[in-house]
Amino acid sequence: MPPAASLVFTTLLSHGPLTRAEVGRRTKLSPAAVTKAVRPLMELGYLVEGVDEEARPAVGRPANLVWVDGGRALFIGIKVTGDEIIAVLADLCCRIRMSRHVPLRGREPEAVLPAITALVQELLTEADGFGVPVRGLGIAISGDVDRADGVVRYSPFLEWRDVPLAEMTGTATGLPVTVDNDVRALTVAEHWFGAGVGLSDFALVTVGAGIGCGLVVHGRVVSGAHGVAGEVGHLSLDPLGPLCHCGNRGCVEAIAADPAILRAVRAVTGGQVADTAEALALAHGADAVVRGIYTRAGEAIGKAIGFLVNILGPQRVIISGEGLAAYDLVAEGIREAFAASAFGTAARCDVVTRPLPFEEWARGAAATAIQSFTGSGRSEESR
Amino acid sequence: MPPAASLVFTTLLSHGPLTRAEVGRRTKLSPAAVTKAVRPLMELGYLVEGVDEEARPAVGRPANLVWVDGGRALFIGIKVTGDEIIAVLADLCCRIRMSRHVPLRGREPEAVLPAITALVQELLTEADGFGVPVRGLGIAISGDVDRADGVVRYSPFLEWRDVPLAEMTGTATGLPVTVDNDVRALTVAEHWFGAGVGLSDFALVTVGAGIGCGLVVHGRVVSGAHGVAGEVGHLSLDPLGPLCHCGNRGCVEAIAADPAILRAVRAVTGGQVADTAEALALAHGADAVVRGIYTRAGEAIGKAIGFLVNILGPQRVIISGEGLAAYDLVAEGIREAFAASAFGTAARCDVVTRPLPFEEWARGAAATAIQSFTGSGRSEESR
Ligand SMILES: [Zn+2]
Ligand SMILES: [Zn+2]
Repeated sequence: MPPAASLVFTTLLSHGPLTRAEVGRRTKLSPAAVTKAVRPLMELGYLVEGVDEEARPAVGRPANLVWVDGGRALFIGIKVTGDEIIAVLADLCCRIRMSRHVPLRGREPEAVLPAITALVQELLTEADGFGVPVRGLGIAISGDVDRADGVVRYSPFLEWRDVPLAEMTGTATGLPVTVDNDVRALTVAEHWFGAGVGLSDFALVTVGAGIGCGLVVHGRVVSGAHGVAGEVGHLSLDPLGPLCHCGNRGCVEAIAADPAILRAVRAVTGGQVADTAEALALAHGADAVVRGIYTRAGEAIGKAIGFLVNILGPQRVIISGEGLAAYDLVAEGIREAFAASAFGTAARCDVVTRPLPFEEWARGAAATAIQSFTGSGRSEESR
Repeated sequence: MPPAASLVFTTLLSHGPLTRAEVGRRTKLSPAAVTKAVRPLMELGYLVEGVDEEARPAVGRPANLVWVDGGRALFIGIKVTGDEIIAVLADLCCRIRMSRHVPLRGREPEAVLPAITALVQELLTEADGFGVPVRGLGIAISGDVDRADGVVRYSPFLEWRDVPLAEMTGTATGLPVTVDNDVRALTVAEHWFGAGVGLSDFALVTVGAGIGCGLVVHGRVVSGAHGVAGEVGHLSLDPLGPLCHCGNRGCVEAIAADPAILRAVRAVTGGQVADTAEALALAHGADAVVRGIYTRAGEAIGKAIGFLVNILGPQRVIISGEGLAAYDLVAEGIREAFAASAFGTAARCDVVTRPLPFEEWARGAAATAIQSFTGSGRSEESR
């Protein structure tokens, strides 16, 4: 889409239905420019215009509204974890129509690629049932991902280096492919369709197998000049703390990520703890020492958020991720450490939690595909 | 100026002289839009067009270039410190034409305002000699400053709260006034005229009486949703460290700012140290304990820069401020701690030092006045 059309379309995606006048106000485009942007998108059926019957005023003519017809296109979003692939079929408004999980047999590209291709074929067949074309595929992977080139530069847990994933999966599936870092993809979804709608500056902090963070500043996702941004997980808060896989001591990830908590719980209980769920059960069973481990995890997260807020001053920080399962145990630590470390009025930043089911990561991948489809992803990349 | 004219003008301020084609490429404006933007600015004399005689090619016609005629307007920039007021008269290209210092008799607005007004009158008289009008006044003050409203919300070292400085000085001088935080003002000057030209993402860290930090992300200065941003000075790095005036322990400012260093040096020498210069002399005289204090200061600064870089991934970090007088003593600590705390490829960030004479702070204030004059300051404020 041309830039003006892309701007109008994404505004309607996040905020629609809107009157044309409201679209003009939000995009700062003239009425003529709005008309020029809207017309071809209506002809293609992506936008529709009509009267909102429910909002019909008591007197006077009801206003015509424009909105996105989500059902006119489908997208596939895929998240690759260390153990499985999660895929969703989402519509143009990023509503999930269908989802699938398949376990991974191996982590090397030779095992992962055929699994992705098979899953995409399965969802393409399902999409036939909707009678609507699939317009793009988004793949989200943790690690250093070069979205512009479609290359996974380095994914530590898959042990991939310089895998041209967009090209490989594009050839195999025939779809336009967008590959992005998983936290950045989730940040895009939150910005367009979630708790970040309408905000120009927010952070998404994900807690779970690792500690991730996506940033939106001045309305755009921050990618980092050298591919690194949002690495709050590797702020080394405690020089005497546990060793982190990055080589430093006392990183947030080495204190507050699920594996770190499990390691600490095993250390105090003598190793009799099978998994994160069991550690959680011990803490909920009022084992004071185990509870203390969660409290310290919360304090590390809260302090890191305080640091982030002191540096960037965002409007909101959204905490999410599978680690929220322990939220009742970490909440107080987060709150207190954040309040203690935030400087002055920065403490007014709105810190919220948002439980996102695991499918949301795949939905984030679909959001990046929608972003590429609308042509607005390009401006994110070209800095 | 209208937005397109403002964009063209600021592009020429930072990058000119340029051909019209190059202006179009950089601003993404059509040739017609460039012409429309350039014409009225030429009529006013702010822009000129001509042939660069030195770049005349051996064959073919030389390219016409457009540039800003810096001499066509003057601006006054003022920095208020706890002890004195520094003022500069700068031209439209932010070149300093004249500067003045006056000591302050008191810190309350009743003492500072007449001193500002008298200094402005003095520079207005000097400006008459150039035969060019003064188009604006910029005032830079440390603390929480609301630029949009022209109000100093809170300045700790002046002990000001909610002082409507822009209105007061505007009434007294008859000039359009821009009031901004001093570090943010210096960041604007670096972005338009200094080591940040051409960069979309950089940080300016100032070391001296305090530790400040200005940020440019996606090409725009970060202000913080609640007026706080760039507060690397109050990252509490060491829970057992010295008490900071913010109430926390081990903040960067409590370890590495000049007063903190002086306090630590006095503690180890039994109080026989008059000022920062004397502390510096002891360290240069190879007093190992005093040198260790500077090393720890450098380590705190380097770690804070590492944290900043992990979070934002800027292209460059510029270290400046009067604290650079001790740079030979802190450089190694900064380098080592930065390398240790930067995560992965974030360590590739270009960390540079830039000694700025104290007048530069006043020049920063002039840069904000130029920004307001060109109409591009508004987009910084309205987020
Ligand atoms: Zn680490
Ligand atoms: Zn502090």
